[in-house]
Amino acid sequence: MLGQMQKTPLLVNGILDYAALYHGEREIISRLVEGEIHRETYAQAHLRARKLSQSLLKLGLTQGDIIATLAWNTHRHLESWYAITGIGAVYHTLNPRLFAEQLVYIINHAADKFIITDLTFVPLLEAIADKLPTVKGFIIMTDEAHMPQTKLDPVYCFESLIEAENGDFDWVALDENAACGICYTSGTTGQPKGVVYSHRSNVIHTLVANGADVFALTSRATILPVVPMFHANSWGIAFAAPMVGAKMVLPGPKMDGESLYELLDKEKVTMSAAVPTIWLMLLQHLEAHKLSLPHLQRVLIGGAAVPRMMIEKFEKDYKVEVDHAWGMTETSPLGTVCTLKAGMENYSFEEKMQTKLKQGRPPYLIWLKITDPDGKTLPRDGKTFGNLKIKGPFILETYLREENEIVLDEEGFFDTGDIATIDPEGYMQITDRAKDIVKSGGEWISSIEIENIAVGHADIAEAAIIGIAHPKWGERPLLIVLPREGVDISTPEKVQKDILAYLEGKIAKWWMPDDIVFVDSMPHTAAGKIQKTALREQFKDYQWPPAILADDKGE
Amino acid sequence: MLGQMQKTPLLVNGILDYAALYHGEREIISRLVEGEIHRETYAQAHLRARKLSQSLLKLGLTQGDIIATLAWNTHRHLESWYAITGIGAVYHTLNPRLFAEQLVYIINHAADKFIITDLTFVPLLEAIADKLPTVKGFIIMTDEAHMPQTKLDPVYCFESLIEAENGDFDWVALDENAACGICYTSGTTGQPKGVVYSHRSNVIHTLVANGADVFALTSRATILPVVPMFHANSWGIAFAAPMVGAKMVLPGPKMDGESLYELLDKEKVTMSAAVPTIWLMLLQHLEAHKLSLPHLQRVLIGGAAVPRMMIEKFEKDYKVEVDHAWGMTETSPLGTVCTLKAGMENYSFEEKMQTKLKQGRPPYLIWLKITDPDGKTLPRDGKTFGNLKIKGPFILETYLREENEIVLDEEGFFDTGDIATIDPEGYMQITDRAKDIVKSGGEWISSIEIENIAVGHADIAEAAIIGIAHPKWGERPLLIVLPREGVDISTPEKVQKDILAYLEGKIAKWWMPDDIVFVDSMPHTAAGKIQKTALREQFKDYQWPPAILADDKGE
Repeated sequence: MLGQMQKTPLLVNGILDYAALYHGEREIISRLVEGEIHRETYAQAHLRARKLSQSLLKLGLTQGDIIATLAWNTHRHLESWYAITGIGAVYHTLNPRLFAEQLVYIINHAADKFIITDLTFVPLLEAIADKLPTVKGFIIMTDEAHMPQTKLDPVYCFESLIEAENGDFDWVALDENAACGICYTSGTTGQPKGVVYSHRSNVIHTLVANGADVFALTSRATILPVVPMFHANSWGIAFAAPMVGAKMVLPGPKMDGESLYELLDKEKVTMSAAVPTIWLMLLQHLEAHKLSLPHLQRVLIGGAAVPRMMIEKFEKDYKVEVDHAWGMTETSPLGTVCTLKAGMENYSFEEKMQTKLKQGRPPYLIWLKITDPDGKTLPRDGKTFGNLKIKGPFILETYLREENEIVLDEEGFFDTGDIATIDPEGYMQITDRAKDIVKSGGEWISSIEIENIAVGHADIAEAAIIGIAHPKWGERPLLIVLPREGVDISTPEKVQKDILAYLEGKIAKWWMPDDIVFVDSMPHTAAGKIQKTALREQFKDYQWPPAILADDKGE
Repeated sequence: MLGQMQKTPLLVNGILDYAALYHGEREIISRLVEGEIHRETYAQAHLRARKLSQSLLKLGLTQGDIIATLAWNTHRHLESWYAITGIGAVYHTLNPRLFAEQLVYIINHAADKFIITDLTFVPLLEAIADKLPTVKGFIIMTDEAHMPQTKLDPVYCFESLIEAENGDFDWVALDENAACGICYTSGTTGQPKGVVYSHRSNVIHTLVANGADVFALTSRATILPVVPMFHANSWGIAFAAPMVGAKMVLPGPKMDGESLYELLDKEKVTMSAAVPTIWLMLLQHLEAHKLSLPHLQRVLIGGAAVPRMMIEKFEKDYKVEVDHAWGMTETSPLGTVCTLKAGMENYSFEEKMQTKLKQGRPPYLIWLKITDPDGKTLPRDGKTFGNLKIKGPFILETYLREENEIVLDEEGFFDTGDIATIDPEGYMQITDRAKDIVKSGGEWISSIEIENIAVGHADIAEAAIIGIAHPKWGERPLLIVLPREGVDISTPEKVQKDILAYLEGKIAKWWMPDDIVFVDSMPHTAAGKIQKTALREQFKDYQWPPAILADDKGE
């Protein structure tokens, strides 16, 4: 027996129709790459997106085509997404921070038909254009006055395309399972892989994200998504904000503390979302200039673990609530948000902090589990850590052009590649990336946890733990240290001893690094994380001191 | 090209799994029909529901069967819903306020297989049991100690069924479009009609309802749904509360002011939902006993227009926010909620009131329009009123066993039978039921608006407007008045003149009733509304005075 309700497909384009109809005067503010601040309304964005849809059709693009965007967060980028999906085509966000050869690989692998780009990235595209056989044209997101001299060919001016149309266009009808957008994982090892969101998965993700216990966006909110639209589906904000008619403030290319503060203050932003690095820059700017944040109520922080200091500063000094969150490209990206549960309002600040340092709990429709290497589910005791796996209607099933590769386990869960704990209240905490964990005698040692404690030592600028083969234990942790400027390591034994003394009591005895080495510089990924693959290469010939090789760990 | 995300079906039973896993200690409090207050947790409800599922299977019930419930809001009723849907069967809520012959019609029309009932309704069922050929058994929601002597046969004790099972049961796998629940419209004319919710429509409805700009339920909330589970799908609260882990307080059979106040106070309820009549009783109780509502933050009021006085009292005297809402059985039932939009926080109290008196705006996924009798869309100017039509994934497509009857218009909208305005901000206001509107010379006169003003006259207890045929104007309004006790109507002309003078200037000249008649009593429906069908029957031979027949309305 079937239900007898309407078979309305869940499509993202209705979101912009809704924003224009119910919140038509609400603004989208953008800092353009050309420099100025641009203001428009949802009604205007709605009209412009439909005009751009008309243009895309005239350029020969059609349903199912993949159209790439290489752009910062601006109204034009937002309009592009809706224009692309409105003709049934698929947006594909390119991350400009990738190396040129990675971009070439991704564009060819997805077989992008067109690239819509910011002025900023024209030179980057010119350098690789002749390696992109599937790309039939380029649209530069600017007006005629700012169009550059370029060898990109054929090339079109975004504003001129829009001006030429009348907007008399209805979004094409689609199945809700049609592809909507693509984002590639950056993949520190192997080639990047494409995640293909459907209209259905994006709409369900947005409904969940807008829950009062999740992002809690309302029509009265003003949100500044610092997180780029090319980063994990913009954390869903490009859909979440118009779905409730929240005012959007888009930072364009400028994400430094001063530029962000200017927008937060002038536009009276109530909520923002970014990775910790961005907030560190903002906090430094606020402190240096003795500024306050009277309008900002909440910041959503994800992409990396939020340091305790950051939560303390935001909540105590600036009265801004921090919501720690976790997700990944494969999860649309919302996995967990750390909002407090009933009863926790009576927690002491320290108790709240112990919860807030965790990545949070999943909203309904998301299921998490942690497993041992054999796939056996592990207890939710807040201590046992295992491979974090996730399931739900906006979680990846297969990667683009790898439809036959099974990446889910028998229960339908996707392995995140993270190692985590889940506590009895359901709060999840990432302890490591699976490939970075040190496996010592069948037990796991969290590299992240040791690193986070080690950087608290006054002499250490950056710290990394890697596992080094050990004949008895399989692997043991080696601590690699970049000392702060001016620190004297002429007698390394003295500094090593001091660091070990600092770690003692803060981590389990058997987690203690067996050796500490000093480096002049630390390798980083494009995203600013320590590049452990490079460290492993650098230390592939490292040999434990003989005493360590003989160590029986108290057996 | 298709998306490559997981094909997880949207099913309601996962909601209770989630509540048990993440909010297992959170409570469900019930006032039982046996008298006492019962407390259990989501974890317990989850176990009991699965045990009941096992029982239902052993009683021979299976996927696709329709199982009726005739019960107040208690934990047992809630468990029944999840137990029924958990075996793929369909819950069918029976409204105990219906007349016996209507219940017989509905049970036979749905072909209910079993009836799960509260003790209260055993006599009612005994009286009709021999007219219910499809019903194979009855379950009484009580324990062995309270089992009544009854001729219902076969009959089972709810608690004994649960005690006999171990709960080792997984909800059956289902297509998300499978039927989930049925609720009949009460239908003042013609036979009641069955609305069949799917798992998909109920889950999407719940996600939308839990939006921060809609019900805004969180895990920290305590909600008391006074609105019965047999009334329009319990306004979705039976799914919305467990989906976020909100504490539930279920009032059982007692909805009087004193009983509700006791629960609101003792259980520190933060949000509640009911029709205006219920709130009137509560407000009277609060005033009579000089009580306050320190915990309650919001009340959701729907089912009938909220009087201005009620909003004023709640918001000014008790500091409780009123959210006016509108929906119907056919809309799952959420149609609109009157939450304020950006900028309105700066409105004066009077400006806010003018918005709050409206039924509100739809959340995303719901589309509204008003049309003229030819189906042409009318402007959203806040003045023009037309037939209110609605569309979306949790709006009815066809009625049960009427799959071939087309009830949607060409654009897929369902005609609500209401007449409404929509203002430029998108706020909808119901002005009348379509069948009650008076059609005068091609223009429409709102019976509700005149009635609401007329009852402000000191001599009037109840007032009803019906349209009476008029040779020139088609119809003209007749005002039917039940005078307050003690009012002297021995010279009716005097009172009539006084009432007309009172109306003058408050409504348009051409809306003025052409005659006023007095009655000794007013007919009411089971839901307490004035029964206009009975009035129309009573006044079917009414003749306008000759002067009115000749009136040319100033032409």
